[in-house]
Amino acid sequence: MPAPPPHSPTSEEDIRWMRRALHLAEQGQGAVEPNPMVGCVIVRDGQPIAEGFHQRFGGPHAERDAVANVPAGVSLAGTTWYVTLEPCCHTGKTPPCTEAVLAARPARVVVAMRDPFPKVDGGGLQQIRAAGIDVQVGVCQEQAEDLNAPYLKRVRSGRPWVIAKWAMTLDGRIATATGNSQWISGEASRAEVHRLRGRCDAVIVGGGTAEADNPTLNARPPGPRTPTRIVVSASGRLAVDSNLVQTIDQGPVQLFASADAAGLQPLVDAGVEVIQFDSDSPSDRLAMVLDHCGAANMTNVLVEGGGDLLGGLFDLDAIDEYHVFIAPRIVGGAAAVSPLGGQGRNKISDSPVFATPQVSRCGDDVYVTARRVSESPPKSVSFNP
Amino acid sequence: MPAPPPHSPTSEEDIRWMRRALHLAEQGQGAVEPNPMVGCVIVRDGQPIAEGFHQRFGGPHAERDAVANVPAGVSLAGTTWYVTLEPCCHTGKTPPCTEAVLAARPARVVVAMRDPFPKVDGGGLQQIRAAGIDVQVGVCQEQAEDLNAPYLKRVRSGRPWVIAKWAMTLDGRIATATGNSQWISGEASRAEVHRLRGRCDAVIVGGGTAEADNPTLNARPPGPRTPTRIVVSASGRLAVDSNLVQTIDQGPVQLFASADAAGLQPLVDAGVEVIQFDSDSPSDRLAMVLDHCGAANMTNVLVEGGGDLLGGLFDLDAIDEYHVFIAPRIVGGAAAVSPLGGQGRNKISDSPVFATPQVSRCGDDVYVTARRVSESPPKSVSFNP
Repeated sequence: MPAPPPHSPTSEEDIRWMRRALHLAEQGQGAVEPNPMVGCVIVRDGQPIAEGFHQRFGGPHAERDAVANVPAGVSLAGTTWYVTLEPCCHTGKTPPCTEAVLAARPARVVVAMRDPFPKVDGGGLQQIRAAGIDVQVGVCQEQAEDLNAPYLKRVRSGRPWVIAKWAMTLDGRIATATGNSQWISGEASRAEVHRLRGRCDAVIVGGGTAEADNPTLNARPPGPRTPTRIVVSASGRLAVDSNLVQTIDQGPVQLFASADAAGLQPLVDAGVEVIQFDSDSPSDRLAMVLDHCGAANMTNVLVEGGGDLLGGLFDLDAIDEYHVFIAPRIVGGAAAVSPLGGQGRNKISDSPVFATPQVSRCGDDVYVTARRVSESPPKSVSFNP
Repeated sequence: MPAPPPHSPTSEEDIRWMRRALHLAEQGQGAVEPNPMVGCVIVRDGQPIAEGFHQRFGGPHAERDAVANVPAGVSLAGTTWYVTLEPCCHTGKTPPCTEAVLAARPARVVVAMRDPFPKVDGGGLQQIRAAGIDVQVGVCQEQAEDLNAPYLKRVRSGRPWVIAKWAMTLDGRIATATGNSQWISGEASRAEVHRLRGRCDAVIVGGGTAEADNPTLNARPPGPRTPTRIVVSASGRLAVDSNLVQTIDQGPVQLFASADAAGLQPLVDAGVEVIQFDSDSPSDRLAMVLDHCGAANMTNVLVEGGGDLLGGLFDLDAIDEYHVFIAPRIVGGAAAVSPLGGQGRNKISDSPVFATPQVSRCGDDVYVTARRVSESPPKSVSFNP
């Protein structure tokens, strides 16, 4: 049996270093997916020796990035490592992180959470522990699960994390009674939407929105990733001369359409990937879109409307996160357009509630983000293989 | 001619003391109406000698309150007075403030804004200047007009300041498709609504809301004033056994109904004041409600819904201020209920926009208040009688 841990499992010091590691991990957002964001801090006697994080997909994992930052001549033997996710024990784009850990001979490895990825899933912890190194799991687990909720959802369910975004007036409308919607939100909010697009794997709209707004749906300026632009249109309605199709050199365009949708060949010729539904059920069709995104290793997808698409996803309980820009404007009108269609919930008490929405200002707009808490397995504070 | 002012018109010192006076004035909110809120700071050689504010209707005005706070034996001759509104020159509930000013013989009186009240309207400034005292008008005028925007609207237009309030979900709904609405907002938000009611002269709802929600519409706990509870119902639909009528001993209830509404005698017998419309036009009827409130010297009225009433007022351009509680909840549903009905605006660019919304948290809810800027006459920085 290894020696008992030198610190109590939730000592303030452990939490402090793990928070630092989580902060580092977050710097990889948008660049590392479909990998998780991971940070690592190496500490001896209460002093940090080196830190690192997974910076981009294909690049070194957090543990190796930290080791690369160790000053020359400094030994890692006897150190404590804080890692936000279980070190991997398989060879992917890079060699297993457990090798780096074992080579360094730390005294203790503190891990925020086990990695549910099937090729890891406790195996990394087991290897490290088998080498006689003290392993502790569960420090800042909730924050770690929140940070990587999109990754965790994809690994556990095969579907991407679905972010719904809209801009509405202070009276809850996304367009006037005549359909006018430009511009509800201000410049700062629209810039924020472009940043959001630039870290997502896909931007999805319904056919009505694609037709009415003729959007480009790309990130301007570009972000760390180029989103696939997806139109969900039962009728397959997407004009060849639309901004989406005309900018296909700037990023892929996919069209999800009914099996009996006709006249799609010109879109295919223009480079649009057409996927045809194998079901007539609207909810099955939306599920198919999400499964397709998950199979393509998409971690975050951004749905920008319209109301039928957002309402349908809400009715499926498929929306994980909301980004809502609220402009200090009133538009009024019984026939003005609301953000979500669909069936909705009959009782307020049955409607999903988000305990810790984030609120900030974007120019004069109010920017509210709310996300569901990751479906986490029971927490463990020590490792039991 | 009096000596030139010892300070430049917008010196930092002037602004600092006037801000202090404005802060004092605000303490009277809810207690002084239909009077304006006024604050006063008396300064000599950069040091405050005394300060005061109008604390309650019928009580001393700000200038006399400040004078009462002057330490015994201290002379006011040669001081500078900062007053947020032109001192009154007429006898109302109390003697003219100009008398108090002239008796003290200050060197200089700095006033944030002229009082448009017909019995004052420059007369107070004229009296003080005629006594050889230097008078400066316009320091922090914008803030002073904002503070007393409800008073100024009533004096200038004969109508009260109309505050619209609702609680909605993050997808902009005030009720589900089945009409369920309790509770969208949290306890902290509901407590804030009661504070708001307790400083308003009336709380107004439509007949449908009165019937569906059976509200009491009083402030719990009571605030500085007891709002008149007003139901606007063309059909005169208000149940004698409703909570409103049953609590008539806690505050007046008024019903605005069509001239041909029948069966109202039991309400009259129960103590409800029934006012019958003299027009069939919905917009004329809403204008009549507001004129009636203004004639009753109501300064602030709070409209709590439903959508037809709020939408009708919006279409009349009659809403001056919005208090919106946004709960971190999603209800969905194409048939869910939105806060404003009516015609609305056809173009986003035609919709009223509020440059400086206030955003805070009420528990987990987001609380946004936005108000229109007071219609101010051209600014003056010095007094020209």
